[in-house]
Amino acid sequence: MGIVVTSIERTDRDLVEGLGAFGTATIHEAQGRTGDLAPRLRPVYAGAHVAGTAVTVSVAPADNWMVHVAIEQCQDGDLLVVAPTSRSDAGFVGELVATALQHRGVRGIVIDAGCRDVAELTAMGFPVWSRCVSVFGTVKETIGDVNVPIVCAGRRIAPGDVVVADDDGVVVVPRAAAADVLAAARAREEREAASRAAYRAGELSLDRSGMREALAEKGLRYVTELPEDGR
Amino acid sequence: MGIVVTSIERTDRDLVEGLGAFGTATIHEAQGRTGDLAPRLRPVYAGAHVAGTAVTVSVAPADNWMVHVAIEQCQDGDLLVVAPTSRSDAGFVGELVATALQHRGVRGIVIDAGCRDVAELTAMGFPVWSRCVSVFGTVKETIGDVNVPIVCAGRRIAPGDVVVADDDGVVVVPRAAAADVLAAARAREEREAASRAAYRAGELSLDRSGMREALAEKGLRYVTELPEDGR
Amino acid sequence: MGIVVTSIERTDRDLVEGLGAFGTATIHEAQGRTGDLAPRLRPVYAGAHVAGTAVTVSVAPADNWMVHVAIEQCQDGDLLVVAPTSRSDAGFVGELVATALQHRGVRGIVIDAGCRDVAELTAMGFPVWSRCVSVFGTVKETIGDVNVPIVCAGRRIAPGDVVVADDDGVVVVPRAAAADVLAAARAREEREAASRAAYRAGELSLDRSGMREALAEKGLRYVTELPEDGR
Amino acid sequence: MGIVVTSIERTDRDLVEGLGAFGTATIHEAQGRTGDLAPRLRPVYAGAHVAGTAVTVSVAPADNWMVHVAIEQCQDGDLLVVAPTSRSDAGFVGELVATALQHRGVRGIVIDAGCRDVAELTAMGFPVWSRCVSVFGTVKETIGDVNVPIVCAGRRIAPGDVVVADDDGVVVVPRAAAADVLAAARAREEREAASRAAYRAGELSLDRSGMREALAEKGLRYVTELPEDGR
Amino acid sequence: MGIVVTSIERTDRDLVEGLGAFGTATIHEAQGRTGDLAPRLRPVYAGAHVAGTAVTVSVAPADNWMVHVAIEQCQDGDLLVVAPTSRSDAGFVGELVATALQHRGVRGIVIDAGCRDVAELTAMGFPVWSRCVSVFGTVKETIGDVNVPIVCAGRRIAPGDVVVADDDGVVVVPRAAAADVLAAARAREEREAASRAAYRAGELSLDRSGMREALAEKGLRYVTELPEDGR
Amino acid sequence: MGIVVTSIERTDRDLVEGLGAFGTATIHEAQGRTGDLAPRLRPVYAGAHVAGTAVTVSVAPADNWMVHVAIEQCQDGDLLVVAPTSRSDAGFVGELVATALQHRGVRGIVIDAGCRDVAELTAMGFPVWSRCVSVFGTVKETIGDVNVPIVCAGRRIAPGDVVVADDDGVVVVPRAAAADVLAAARAREEREAASRAAYRAGELSLDRSGMREALAEKGLRYVTELPEDGR
Repeated sequence: MGIVVTSIERTDRDLVEGLGAFGTATIHEAQGRTGDLAPRLRPVYAGAHVAGTAVTVSVAPADNWMVHVAIEQCQDGDLLVVAPTSRSDAGFVGELVATALQHRGVRGIVIDAGCRDVAELTAMGFPVWSRCVSVFGTVKETIGDVNVPIVCAGRRIAPGDVVVADDDGVVVVPRAAAADVLAAARAREEREAASRAAYRAGELSLDRSGMREALAEKGLRYVTELPEDGR
Repeated sequence: MGIVVTSIERTDRDLVEGLGAFGTATIHEAQGRTGDLAPRLRPVYAGAHVAGTAVTVSVAPADNWMVHVAIEQCQDGDLLVVAPTSRSDAGFVGELVATALQHRGVRGIVIDAGCRDVAELTAMGFPVWSRCVSVFGTVKETIGDVNVPIVCAGRRIAPGDVVVADDDGVVVVPRAAAADVLAAARAREEREAASRAAYRAGELSLDRSGMREALAEKGLRYVTELPEDGR
Repeated sequence: MGIVVTSIERTDRDLVEGLGAFGTATIHEAQGRTGDLAPRLRPVYAGAHVAGTAVTVSVAPADNWMVHVAIEQCQDGDLLVVAPTSRSDAGFVGELVATALQHRGVRGIVIDAGCRDVAELTAMGFPVWSRCVSVFGTVKETIGDVNVPIVCAGRRIAPGDVVVADDDGVVVVPRAAAADVLAAARAREEREAASRAAYRAGELSLDRSGMREALAEKGLRYVTELPEDGR
Repeated sequence: MGIVVTSIERTDRDLVEGLGAFGTATIHEAQGRTGDLAPRLRPVYAGAHVAGTAVTVSVAPADNWMVHVAIEQCQDGDLLVVAPTSRSDAGFVGELVATALQHRGVRGIVIDAGCRDVAELTAMGFPVWSRCVSVFGTVKETIGDVNVPIVCAGRRIAPGDVVVADDDGVVVVPRAAAADVLAAARAREEREAASRAAYRAGELSLDRSGMREALAEKGLRYVTELPEDGR
Repeated sequence: MGIVVTSIERTDRDLVEGLGAFGTATIHEAQGRTGDLAPRLRPVYAGAHVAGTAVTVSVAPADNWMVHVAIEQCQDGDLLVVAPTSRSDAGFVGELVATALQHRGVRGIVIDAGCRDVAELTAMGFPVWSRCVSVFGTVKETIGDVNVPIVCAGRRIAPGDVVVADDDGVVVVPRAAAADVLAAARAREEREAASRAAYRAGELSLDRSGMREALAEKGLRYVTELPEDGR
Repeated sequence: MGIVVTSIERTDRDLVEGLGAFGTATIHEAQGRTGDLAPRLRPVYAGAHVAGTAVTVSVAPADNWMVHVAIEQCQDGDLLVVAPTSRSDAGFVGELVATALQHRGVRGIVIDAGCRDVAELTAMGFPVWSRCVSVFGTVKETIGDVNVPIVCAGRRIAPGDVVVADDDGVVVVPRAAAADVLAAARAREEREAASRAAYRAGELSLDRSGMREALAEKGLRYVTELPEDGR
């Protein structure tokens, strides 16, 4: 504890931008249904959709000192990812931290704790995904880590990994997997576009995906009336 | 388990439209203060207000197979009501399911689990009331039931019942009670309109509803100063 | 129990308006990082920001009788603060209560329980901060207290105290502390304005607040690579 | 609302006793993996295991009046099942209610709210499964229903249904299904006894249940080392 | 903030011992159904029942420095009451703190946060009521207050107040109210003893408390069968 | 996904046994206050204290298929660690799985989901730390991973790491750190033994740890009376 790694390998900008073109649900599926952070993280305003390279911060509960340390490690295209070492609902980040980060080209904050200054963040167009909104302020007493792998909202995030966030939540794509996941996301999106068109035309997924046989094999019964002992 | 009832009795369309003219709070009160689903169900965007006949779906945790089965059973004016058999925060429904449902004239989804594609649902104007928003995807492995009575967010809902949902939450009106509840809602709304006008004019509910005597009987005391042993 | 204090000392209007010019986070900090109500209280719509003098109400669970009693005790510039004696998710307040309060110049409601009629409250521009939104209605059977000090969402609030609420949550400033807190808020705001400008210009809080030495004393190490046993 | 059904059909005592010989997990499985009440219900002391016929009570939040009404409807072999119409953490039942119920041969209480007098209940050997333990007392102001079907902790329970409760939680078996479920439970228990013996002897469920082929078909790979892109 | 009040007025020892003879539920009722701390506070082992005079401690989240300061202020017959200024699940107190407190005659700890060393506390017979059990340790960086009134688990507690805790939870009795509450508790206990005997003999509370008429007035109907539109 | 690593490096048995001699709180502190799993994991019975090498399992929600796969990978001295890919309260493990594991010398289960058969597990002396106790059963439909690093209750656990669990909760010690943590735990325990003796003799931690000066520097004030504006 008490380490700042000053030189990290970031995922290629092209891959980040590529992934940022997709929603978090698509990326999650393209990645084998993993990488999703817990749904307790919610955006402070609707409509934001960002992708960036993770700068990770491990903070003590109700202590945002390391967030200030982390700012210096951020560069254009990054996204700050903050996890407390024990549950805390304090408001670790707000307008001032966001101002400093925005100056450096940081695209948003993901924090498994509280944030504040929601009105100002909204006006600035600087999105934050947080566990809660909280007035309670933090101290600057205990050191932690910057750019060391952390667990945030149930997923491991290493510095330089891609983090994508939108109205549905947050997903992480490990740096090594970014190219593959991007390709898979593109393939999935194409399939979904075809499905979308088909569904709009009235086709059923039961037919389109050939589910009827599998359902019958599982024993699904179609009846016109609920059996007496049905429930 | 593993039953799809293909022929259900739906509440009369006129009754559904009639009830849909009222808010969920009014209907809940008109129905003897019951029928409300647990407040953990929240709309994914503000301002939606729909009424429909319930097509019910019982799903395994993190498995949306039966949702696909249910689509075929839906018709114009329905509302899909989904309950997992054990708590699940997975995202069971999203844009593609919504597209298929919207094509059939379904008015929305009520689900005691997660949904995703919030931005797309908002753009489509297809409302969902859910327990959470979640990126986590589902599998298609385990069968369940369609159009069998279920418990959703603490209330029993039978297929064909009226479900009304707005910014305040979700209420169910059993098919057999729809006409009576509609009449009661109309009567209540009239009384409330009168009260609203009176309150705008400065009348107090204490006087309008004659509460003062009952309060005095219960022992309410008006004092100018808190007694020493007040608290 | 069962007491209505009809004559309370309200904080000076000038102090209330002065405090209302600041956000809740600023006031909380200016007050020595206290006074914040628990973050479970959320506004029913975004963008509201009000300050008022507290009229306090202690209610039985799922019983809003005392809210009606409290209306009469409210005057222009007040804010109604409601706490149940045991957890309740019922919808204690809605459009009708809000109409009556708005007529009297009340600025909003803070309630550690549920509210309803969110669409109407939004249309009226009458803000409510609540624990949840809930259709479930209340009875009028059990008396409680008005204008007796209460604990609401974890903080003690006395009648006449200043309550400020915005998108970040709710804070209380005791009447006796209002002048000092206002002065401190002004001083803090000035410092923050200077910091904001500095951060926009790219200065780091590490330098601006002279944190580097303290961090080094605590043992913070800057490394270019994560040590083997780093984590 | 406000109904007491004085004459209900109870499940045959033999079936109740038969089911009571099995644990809740076995009965849940034997019933097609349903009937389980939400795991938030926990016993106030370890080691209790009871089965009884449900006398159902619907109560207003923090109001136990109908519990007193229900006592009179109880007879030997019953189990009292209580659900509030809206979440309440109040302590609805305690030693005195338990004393009256024990006198009538009631076997325990299942309540989706709070109970109190844990030490006394333990000493009496009268088990309660509850959502929480709570000192907060109730009023007697609002009527509800007795022996009307209710939803308790997520499951519908009709009067006369069998309720079984043990250290694992609570399950309901509808009266009409009791005989079938009992037979299925017996069959399951036999199979489990054989499995238990096999596992004690070192057999693997992979082999005993022939899972290896199905796993391979799903694509499970055995490797000696985690692939580079493994996670 | 940052204050230790070294001289507090404690409730008379006789009153404390007198109240300690009653359970928390009885005291809560005797006090007009108030004083109960939130049911999230649970004892770390069953069977403890203590009463003591409160020494109050306000701590920063995950920082137990002030607990160490508070030990010195404790004397025989006290009970330590700890509340964090923002939610924290850290383990603030354990065996070592308990050892120091036990040496001074302190009877237990009530903390709206976490504790640890459960096995050791049980072996020592030193009871703790806490929000959770948590391994996570605390720092000693931020000062708070000792013997200043606090809000703990939803109730205000002043230094010197009586705190009683048992298997049902925790109640506070303000010093000024202790004599009255003790008298009321004694009266209540007598009434309950009479009721207990009556219930054991088979009398119904409906008759004993004369509820039948009030229920009928409220409209309670006894029927032999559920009406068609019953629910 | 869908990988079973059959050959993992386990921490040396001596280190495991060494660490198992200490409580989780001590190990957590010795490790720089980290490694603790979230306090939502609780033992199903009091008094268990085990240490083992982790065999990790990643399961689909409400699907315990991979637990059966994992059994074969376990050997004497292991501890099974199970994490669902999305929140699930299902009962994944019970007596039969425990029987098979106990036969192989496995010391317990840590699972961030539900377990069942509490009475049987207690009788067997096979401890489980779980998020909840739940009757709800699982399916065997979806594959996952065995012996791939997972996140369980907020901490990353790699196969072969040491996991220690007791009444206070669960901690993980990475294999590479085990020797250092063991040494630190021993040192800490010695210091604590000395402190324990000192506290029993009445010494204050304020003096023993020399806190008085630091507190004074922070501005702590000792007063005999609460200042007017104290709170």
